[in-house]
Amino acid sequence: MNTINLDHLSANPLLPEVQEAMIEAIKLNYGNPSSQHQIGDKAAEALETSRESVARLINCATPKEMVFTSGGTESVNHAIKGVAFAKAEKGKHIVTSNIEHNAVLRSLRRLKMMDFHVTSVPVDEYGRVNPKDVAEAIKDETILVSIMHSNNEIGTIQPIEEIARITREKKVLLHTDAADSVGVVPIDVQKMGVDLLSFASNTFYGPTGMGGLYVRRGTNVWPLLDGGVQENNKRAGTENLIGIIGMGVAADLAIRDMDSRIVHVRKLKERLIQGLPEHIDEFFINGHPEQSLPHLVSISIKYIEGESVVLLLDEDNIAVSTRSACAAGALQASHVLLSIGRDFADAQGTMVVTFGVDNTEDDVGRFLTVLKEAVKTLREISPLYTKTSQAAQA
Amino acid sequence: MNTINLDHLSANPLLPEVQEAMIEAIKLNYGNPSSQHQIGDKAAEALETSRESVARLINCATPKEMVFTSGGTESVNHAIKGVAFAKAEKGKHIVTSNIEHNAVLRSLRRLKMMDFHVTSVPVDEYGRVNPKDVAEAIKDETILVSIMHSNNEIGTIQPIEEIARITREKKVLLHTDAADSVGVVPIDVQKMGVDLLSFASNTFYGPTGMGGLYVRRGTNVWPLLDGGVQENNKRAGTENLIGIIGMGVAADLAIRDMDSRIVHVRKLKERLIQGLPEHIDEFFINGHPEQSLPHLVSISIKYIEGESVVLLLDEDNIAVSTRSACAAGALQASHVLLSIGRDFADAQGTMVVTFGVDNTEDDVGRFLTVLKEAVKTLREISPLYTKTSQAAQA
Repeated sequence: MNTINLDHLSANPLLPEVQEAMIEAIKLNYGNPSSQHQIGDKAAEALETSRESVARLINCATPKEMVFTSGGTESVNHAIKGVAFAKAEKGKHIVTSNIEHNAVLRSLRRLKMMDFHVTSVPVDEYGRVNPKDVAEAIKDETILVSIMHSNNEIGTIQPIEEIARITREKKVLLHTDAADSVGVVPIDVQKMGVDLLSFASNTFYGPTGMGGLYVRRGTNVWPLLDGGVQENNKRAGTENLIGIIGMGVAADLAIRDMDSRIVHVRKLKERLIQGLPEHIDEFFINGHPEQSLPHLVSISIKYIEGESVVLLLDEDNIAVSTRSACAAGALQASHVLLSIGRDFADAQGTMVVTFGVDNTEDDVGRFLTVLKEAVKTLREISPLYTKTSQAAQA
Repeated sequence: MNTINLDHLSANPLLPEVQEAMIEAIKLNYGNPSSQHQIGDKAAEALETSRESVARLINCATPKEMVFTSGGTESVNHAIKGVAFAKAEKGKHIVTSNIEHNAVLRSLRRLKMMDFHVTSVPVDEYGRVNPKDVAEAIKDETILVSIMHSNNEIGTIQPIEEIARITREKKVLLHTDAADSVGVVPIDVQKMGVDLLSFASNTFYGPTGMGGLYVRRGTNVWPLLDGGVQENNKRAGTENLIGIIGMGVAADLAIRDMDSRIVHVRKLKERLIQGLPEHIDEFFINGHPEQSLPHLVSISIKYIEGESVVLLLDEDNIAVSTRSACAAGALQASHVLLSIGRDFADAQGTMVVTFGVDNTEDDVGRFLTVLKEAVKTLREISPLYTKTSQAAQA
């Protein structure tokens, strides 16, 4: 039996058109876009064609605002450290939120080791940042606000446009980590008003290890990779042209199919949410009911461990994720779930389902059936569940 | 007519076996090596198989010393900035050479903007660093020595083993940029005694935008990319698995074919050097006569511009490079050629030929014939050549 992938956030399959374009690029054996001869010319042309496609996906004012990187993590590091180092003389204060991805969290932790200061604003029970909190956190020495566009564990989408109005008024740069949004929901960097935006190609069915950083014209940010003059002097190093070509085709398809993909995954998400109460009890759905990624469902199930559910589902060829972020093997509850008010036990009992173009309604049905059995099995061996249910019967 | 590629330094073609492995990986649609389910397991296995191959190519003590990166430039930035930031409290002084690649030069220039100090040692007429100069440049506050393994413009190989004996005695870390050496000549990090070594996959016919950093066990170096726990916590970000698989196969082939490849390109190099005097006059061969890359010939031709030769050869479908590093279009002579004592005019008249597995003796013959005509054409319109030859006749 084929595995049902309900963990698209971890890895999207490459679309057939993306595969074809990458295979073609491999066979063509492109040269180096920076070469001085004909072999290089064709490579440079392919590079710029992809840049135009990807720039179009997020509505850059010009393709020159698009910097290709090795993925979302590099983009985030580039944006945050690049602004911090470029503007350190102006100030060393950065504002962020309590529910950022590790790439943001750890880039900021790194900067703290270099005498930068960080204010982290809280989120409400749905995981939303209050723009007023951002406004209040900004000080004279603030050089950057970094707030994610959507959260990778609970799917909540932040009010970035409102935050951007504040940062522009206060003349502070705004970066948004849109690694789980670009290609999933419409993103328009001009309308949004951000200065820097990070994303990853695999989110829209392009290759992993490939991504981009939007840098608004005139934004002062140091390169993370110094060396040659590639990427308009913003990111040195010979390009991963095969990956770039794949990302370009994936961007074209995302533009074309955005609306129908959203309709498709939203239907599956609704079907899952409606079906859950018929199959399990004592659970919550995390995240904002409307301002949320259309393909993501975060479920906290009481009296069980998310890790154990993942293992049992895996035995039945269903792939899901816990995202409980067991850093280095230690049992550590998700900072995102704790931030929205879940307690430690509920945070540990959380799983994340993310749908993709390859999922069907049957997948949802099969998932619900297998989940029901898994939860039953796990609760039977859970001392906490036994105790609680006995107390209820008494 | 097919283009004759004599610019393998800019871009090596992917070998058929590498192409096949990458195409297979694209079709297999691997998941994310960090996932918790079966889809991820296969990806993790492929990742570690490649790590073993690449680690073997440079004789790491363990595959854990191998960090995959997005290429030579990232590796160099990671090594230099990573050591600088990790050891800033011990000291802020770094020693390098006058003929490093832009990735090293500009990483160091960046660090100078952050109050680091750099001593750059000279090279002799062959482009060799004198290890005594390195020893004398090391001060109490020196934290790193970064000297390239081989030079990308003149091919000269540095006495890294001797330099490593000095740095180990003085307890300073040693990084070598081996981006043009790994896969071309035998590299043994243990024998060499370096702490950090950078390289790029395309140098041994793997994909571009892919590379590695050797980090000796226990070496204190900050990640350049903070975030997830990938690459043994040394380099965050979802992996470019297709590129990694390609690099792994390329490494296996490089190990298998190293000796025969060296014999092949050295024969072409010798044939070219022997043939040159029969076709052109008033030229020099740059670089060390023995301690040099076996596939690289740097030729300074008097009274002409290297750029113009490249264009004329390109019209005849022969790809070569000037490497005169016209940064941002400005006429700027190569710092490498000036460092070995060439004057500005000779530096401008320089071209670099790099051979590969796909070249034949016929390619050398054709190159010499076309070069002869190109030089004749260009000298006829060179005012300097006319003046000099008239003076000689008078």
